Amino acid sequence: MIILGLDPGLGTTGWGVIRADGNRLSHVANGQIRTDPSMQLPRRLSHLFGALGEVIRTERPDSAAAEEVLGNTNAQSTLKLGQARGVVLLSAATAGLAIGEYHPSVVKKAVVGTGGADKRQIQAMVGHLLPGVKLAGPDAADALAVAITHAHHLASAHARARRTGVGA
Amino acid sequence: MIILGLDPGLGTTGWGVIRADGNRLSHVANGQIRTDPSMQLPRRLSHLFGALGEVIRTERPDSAAAEEVLGNTNAQSTLKLGQARGVVLLSAATAGLAIGEYHPSVVKKAVVGTGGADKRQIQAMVGHLLPGVKLAGPDAADALAVAITHAHHLASAHARARRTGVGA
Repeated sequence: MIILGLDPGLGTTGWGVIRADGNRLSHVANGQIRTDPSMQLPRRLSHLFGALGEVIRTERPDSAAAEEVLGNTNAQSTLKLGQARGVVLLSAATAGLAIGEYHPSVVKKAVVGTGGADKRQIQAMVGHLLPGVKLAGPDAADALAVAITHAHHLASAHARARRTGVGA
Repeated sequence: MIILGLDPGLGTTGWGVIRADGNRLSHVANGQIRTDPSMQLPRRLSHLFGALGEVIRTERPDSAAAEEVLGNTNAQSTLKLGQARGVVLLSAATAGLAIGEYHPSVVKKAVVGTGGADKRQIQAMVGHLLPGVKLAGPDAADALAVAITHAHHLASAHARARRTGVGA
């Protein structure tokens, strides 16, 4: 199964693709989509939508997952993040992909083992779990971490279903 | 010139289309796109994108405008609004439309004459400025108000350009 992880942002959206073969994970590709802050918002969103659509057409994932976000006290930055996130979720939905959503603390716990892990620890563990990976940047690392979390989630749902005899 | 006004929201997005012939405005169509709160967010965004794309293909506007939003202190509702707004701006951008953005107080001032107008006053003035209009609801009225604001803006930019001899 090919899994696409997404870390949405208006300035930079991280993406990461892994292959999950039961509990064995391997790296396929990762990258960061940047939008030009000097461009108007609709054009930035359009660029993000086009570039992510290209990633999906190239990598042909079977499933996708994105970081849940809570927003913060700065309404303007929450709005920016929301606009980018809407476009990112739409990209996956229009490609017919089911999208898992995981809270950042769940991702950190799944990858590092503690919900309070920092970016450096996430990058180190992503490198450890996906040997040979070359990270395009911190947002790509976060996206791979989301993909790994989704793979774990799907594997344990599958194992539960096998134990109870219900199809996964 | 056919102008599409947009009032984005995750639950309900209002849209309104007017024809501007110099300073003469007339109503073409208006409506509200609702998304089902029981559906998952990516599906709601996908429904919004599809429905708005259909409006744009049917009405073939020359220009679009949307309400600027500032977000508020509730990060979750700001995030929801942002996600819907991102998809709405993307719909217009992928159709190749330029998108004007107007602060709600600018829209109120353009339509009612005062930046502090309430929804009821906006609906009444939209009905007055576009005789015979049947409003699909308050969000459609807001969308028509944005379209009217954009028409005024384009007309005065055109008039300025004629006075200074610069092409509009």
